[in-house]
Amino acid sequence: MWPMSSNCKTSLLFFLLFAFFFFFPGKCPGCKALVAITLLSISCFGYLLEGSHVASETIPQLEPPPHHTSRPCTTVGQGAGEASHSSHCKPWLCNCRTGVARPPLPLPKHHGLPINWEHKGLSQQQRRDSAGDRGWEVKPRSQPGIPAETAGMRVAVVGAGVSGLTATKCCLDEGLEPTCFEQSQDIGGVWRYTEYIEAGRPSLYPSVISNTSKEMSAFSDFPYPEDFSVFLPNAQLLDYLRRYAEHFSLRGHIKFGTTVVSIRKRPDFATTGQWDVVTEAGGKQTSHVFDAIMVCIGNCSEPSLPLHCFPGIEKFQGQYFHSRQYKHPEVFQGKRVLVVGMGNSGADIAVEASRVAAKVTLCTSQGAWVISRVFDYGYPWDMVFNTRLMSLIRNHLPHPLSWGLINHRANQWFKHENYGLQPEKRCLVRDPVLNDDLPSYILTGRITIKPSVKEFKDNSVVFHNCPEEEPIDIVVFCTGYNVSFPFLEETVVKMENKHASLYKYVFPTHLQRPTLAVLGLIKPLGAIMPVSEMQARWVTRVFKGLCQLPPQSVMEKEVNENKKIQLQWFGLSFDEVLKTDWLAYLDQLTSFIGAKPSVLRLLCRDPRLALTIFFGPCTPYQYRLVGPGRWEGARQAILTQWDRTLKPTRTRVSANSSSLCPSLLTVVGFLLLLATLLFGFQ
Amino acid sequence: MWPMSSNCKTSLLFFLLFAFFFFFPGKCPGCKALVAITLLSISCFGYLLEGSHVASETIPQLEPPPHHTSRPCTTVGQGAGEASHSSHCKPWLCNCRTGVARPPLPLPKHHGLPINWEHKGLSQQQRRDSAGDRGWEVKPRSQPGIPAETAGMRVAVVGAGVSGLTATKCCLDEGLEPTCFEQSQDIGGVWRYTEYIEAGRPSLYPSVISNTSKEMSAFSDFPYPEDFSVFLPNAQLLDYLRRYAEHFSLRGHIKFGTTVVSIRKRPDFATTGQWDVVTEAGGKQTSHVFDAIMVCIGNCSEPSLPLHCFPGIEKFQGQYFHSRQYKHPEVFQGKRVLVVGMGNSGADIAVEASRVAAKVTLCTSQGAWVISRVFDYGYPWDMVFNTRLMSLIRNHLPHPLSWGLINHRANQWFKHENYGLQPEKRCLVRDPVLNDDLPSYILTGRITIKPSVKEFKDNSVVFHNCPEEEPIDIVVFCTGYNVSFPFLEETVVKMENKHASLYKYVFPTHLQRPTLAVLGLIKPLGAIMPVSEMQARWVTRVFKGLCQLPPQSVMEKEVNENKKIQLQWFGLSFDEVLKTDWLAYLDQLTSFIGAKPSVLRLLCRDPRLALTIFFGPCTPYQYRLVGPGRWEGARQAILTQWDRTLKPTRTRVSANSSSLCPSLLTVVGFLLLLATLLFGFQ
Repeated sequence: MWPMSSNCKTSLLFFLLFAFFFFFPGKCPGCKALVAITLLSISCFGYLLEGSHVASETIPQLEPPPHHTSRPCTTVGQGAGEASHSSHCKPWLCNCRTGVARPPLPLPKHHGLPINWEHKGLSQQQRRDSAGDRGWEVKPRSQPGIPAETAGMRVAVVGAGVSGLTATKCCLDEGLEPTCFEQSQDIGGVWRYTEYIEAGRPSLYPSVISNTSKEMSAFSDFPYPEDFSVFLPNAQLLDYLRRYAEHFSLRGHIKFGTTVVSIRKRPDFATTGQWDVVTEAGGKQTSHVFDAIMVCIGNCSEPSLPLHCFPGIEKFQGQYFHSRQYKHPEVFQGKRVLVVGMGNSGADIAVEASRVAAKVTLCTSQGAWVISRVFDYGYPWDMVFNTRLMSLIRNHLPHPLSWGLINHRANQWFKHENYGLQPEKRCLVRDPVLNDDLPSYILTGRITIKPSVKEFKDNSVVFHNCPEEEPIDIVVFCTGYNVSFPFLEETVVKMENKHASLYKYVFPTHLQRPTLAVLGLIKPLGAIMPVSEMQARWVTRVFKGLCQLPPQSVMEKEVNENKKIQLQWFGLSFDEVLKTDWLAYLDQLTSFIGAKPSVLRLLCRDPRLALTIFFGPCTPYQYRLVGPGRWEGARQAILTQWDRTLKPTRTRVSANSSSLCPSLLTVVGFLLLLATLLFGFQ
Repeated sequence: MWPMSSNCKTSLLFFLLFAFFFFFPGKCPGCKALVAITLLSISCFGYLLEGSHVASETIPQLEPPPHHTSRPCTTVGQGAGEASHSSHCKPWLCNCRTGVARPPLPLPKHHGLPINWEHKGLSQQQRRDSAGDRGWEVKPRSQPGIPAETAGMRVAVVGAGVSGLTATKCCLDEGLEPTCFEQSQDIGGVWRYTEYIEAGRPSLYPSVISNTSKEMSAFSDFPYPEDFSVFLPNAQLLDYLRRYAEHFSLRGHIKFGTTVVSIRKRPDFATTGQWDVVTEAGGKQTSHVFDAIMVCIGNCSEPSLPLHCFPGIEKFQGQYFHSRQYKHPEVFQGKRVLVVGMGNSGADIAVEASRVAAKVTLCTSQGAWVISRVFDYGYPWDMVFNTRLMSLIRNHLPHPLSWGLINHRANQWFKHENYGLQPEKRCLVRDPVLNDDLPSYILTGRITIKPSVKEFKDNSVVFHNCPEEEPIDIVVFCTGYNVSFPFLEETVVKMENKHASLYKYVFPTHLQRPTLAVLGLIKPLGAIMPVSEMQARWVTRVFKGLCQLPPQSVMEKEVNENKKIQLQWFGLSFDEVLKTDWLAYLDQLTSFIGAKPSVLRLLCRDPRLALTIFFGPCTPYQYRLVGPGRWEGARQAILTQWDRTLKPTRTRVSANSSSLCPSLLTVVGFLLLLATLLFGFQ
């Protein structure tokens, strides 16, 4: 959104900044930061100030409800390092009644976290001990200032995947009593690969690799070991989740082999907010009463296979199945394969099939932007894309320019139009596809892109705008998943036109008491782990009454506005992502609980950290610098984020690792830009 | 090489030009050309002039031998469209004695070549007929002005691969009588895949895809069908070779199942230049006498496996083999694999192995630049890299700047240092590796890069500078091939330190008569097909006496100079490629026979063609515009080169294919550059 206060010079400067980062993309260790700082120093001390308010600008500027306005407002759980963010003073965001000022905790100068920390080979007790020594201590289970009646609040967590684990952990951090129900016998959810498909559980193919880099996909107080790959094969990601569960002693709170059958409001829900929960384990049903519910069941369990959209499929003689049933490429050996739908699975499966199949056709009605994990200069895409500076620039450019630049940037790797992948205009709002291989597979003729299916015939398929039939032996429908909550009454989470009415993608808007939350449904352009975690941190504080939600009408208004621009059920649409992207969403959630870092304040106290936070990737550790759940290791984790990123790939060090010329080029680039700047401002 | 005549402003303009193409890489249909032309028009009509002499500058400025200097000089076989190039007047390059001026042939305005020409479904006769109608006619087998004694000259062509086929075809074009001896039962050489390895024949793994794009890999008068992939799977490339052989009726001149046993100078070689050739077919030897020999045996038949360089290999308990023996990745299933050597095969095999192996380590002592087929904006790398403009810029920049820019450019996709691939300084001269997958496979942990092997142990390996042992089950040595000519006496092609003494990588320097040529050994950074073809076109005219070689001393001097900068046997070294690259080498060869196009002259007569030639990819059709072997279809083939390139991938056309913003960006880029230009010239 174009800020109301913007003027011509503002736009120009932002444009020039963008131009600079456009022509000099990639991580900028040293030189780039220097140039950027020089540029910034020309006229934009004010921008940093403005920048620190971006997130709050995207928070709806709600009028406080009458019954809150007269109350005095103090901030809660904020150390000296925290900004008294304007949004915190909105009483429905931060419950001031329970506010107790804690003594300021100075940021540690150095907490002694070794760069190459590693859990392997340590017992659980040793880990806890060593973690404690190094500042990786398990957060205290209860905090001063928490009302006694919430300290033992019982929370049911449904599912022990990424969201369920972090929900359980956040409950423990806040002194709540979580019980996590997991229908299978192990943790990991979608990330636990099994050779056979289990009903009601997500199913993974063995080659799945995370779409987001390890530093961006970490839980905010638990970095990945430095020898883990930059992008994680599913087994390594599961390993990380196991370590997380072990380190924070979560397993004791999880009931395995237990299915949640129903969750119903108790008769006295309006006053207590409590729920009746019926679970089933070993054929035996049990009833429980819980004070709050966190639904963490993900969205990859119920395949969506809209066969009615494919005329003639009933007479098609070949084999067809949903991508959920795909495990190994051997099934495609020598066959002519059609992959329907170009999400991440569709692209992955087409690439794998093409190595053994006779011919692979990938059809997509709407196209998609394809992004590579190997981004500018080989840095992980999300560590380049999701920086505060980039987010700031994206959010401050006028929409058409922003659209055009994104369009241009997306085409820099390859012109999507020439590869048959150009998204339709109405489809620009779709999630981009993460795939490293697709363009080269198209260019080498191993995959052919086609428009959507018009009709199936006996042994072939006809595409829209293509006269000839394409002979096909096997069809894979990569048509995504439906989201449903079979254990909930329909009235609890309202589904309309595949859109759930959830405030901030978390809270049902119409419950009398905010004691049920849905986690991990949003899919912004970034890692899901920190998103689930920040949601859980916010939710637990809402449960405890330390944060409040706005009135129902305000929440519903916002949800309805979101509906208008959403085409798909889960996740922010792409267009929306561009406006209130991953980073802005995290900033929003953490600003609710007072854990959002203030770059401006840090700039005076710890300039190195502030610059790293502003120019570098927004790793989740940033949300542990201040506020509740502050973690002593956060600063060091941020400053060593690139060490852990580069370690697993820098396995052969060359004798002459540095060269003069790149910096020479940077200088030339700087001169070019300076000339433009002078030219532009004359 | 920095031209002697350059001055400060020249360098600056070239630098700015480079900077422009550096910041706006990729194909530039329209806008980019416009900007470049505007820039050029500022001060560089003279540069085009200079540009047209680049190739001649790189030709050694030899003093003509005394017995030639007094002879009058006229050009041979040049129509009105040809430049009377200075080098043509060197009598050892162009034999003026036989020169007969032919009537000028105007370039066709439109020769009616349909864009979507296709041979499929036509009989051979039909093809010839239709080809004739469309200007694709088979070149006349003899030309006016050829001395009668050379018209029936018998030429032995050894091998029916890419080089052998085009050698046979060029012999026919020049009215010579070729006999091609092929030891196997079919054409195709290295490109004919067989499941089983045949002794003395190259062996391919089934996943091999050409490293160069189809338009750049075409023979100069035989474009690929437009529906062929942009980069060709080996089967498709073989299909092309079959069509070539069929279209030009080459099969009748090939003796299959016939091995060349020996080639010896005849006793009267000094006067006749003839050779005794002994062949063997079906166990029966036959003797022949040939007037000339073209050796087209390639360099992928005799694996180089220097086991003595790997201490401890004799006690290694695991399996090991040379890359030549690799066919399918199943052999690596579940194994810990070590791939030794990082050429194209090494990278390919490591990538394939990593899909099934437990762990893959790729070790390289010297590192390498890795280039993707999907280059800037998704255009084929060689169509961006091998343009006359880029070549001109590369050849005019001072060496350190050129080196630095190449370094920077190579790191734009990914910083090689961060991926453990940074080439050692001394190794910058190595060929780059073409691989689309390697970086993402490293980033996702599927392949680990290590330094060279220090020692093998029973079940593991130790690398240099790495203390820990790496357990290994299977080793693939991708250590390349040796080149040998078993049927030739050692004195004919002198091998010294793995370097063959061949003038222009073709002619032995010390034969009394130039009647033996080696084709297709050079490996510059570009497609081998046009290189072999231009070599063959030159060689046949040398055989006929229409071109002459310089004196032995001159040739030896040049070969010795090349030796100094060559580290590897075959091919120009990388460093050398940068100076006298693929394009310059082709220009050199074609300037010898008068087939090099002159951009400057074309600019007046056919500006569209001239600009396409100068700014666009240097497709081989450019060498059929003028001179002997001129082809009527060349102009149309050049103007439709992008149509044929984009056809196979543009298989889904979006409704809104064009957008305003990229051109807006180009305009902004232009303004940026203009400002710099003004700033720079003040």
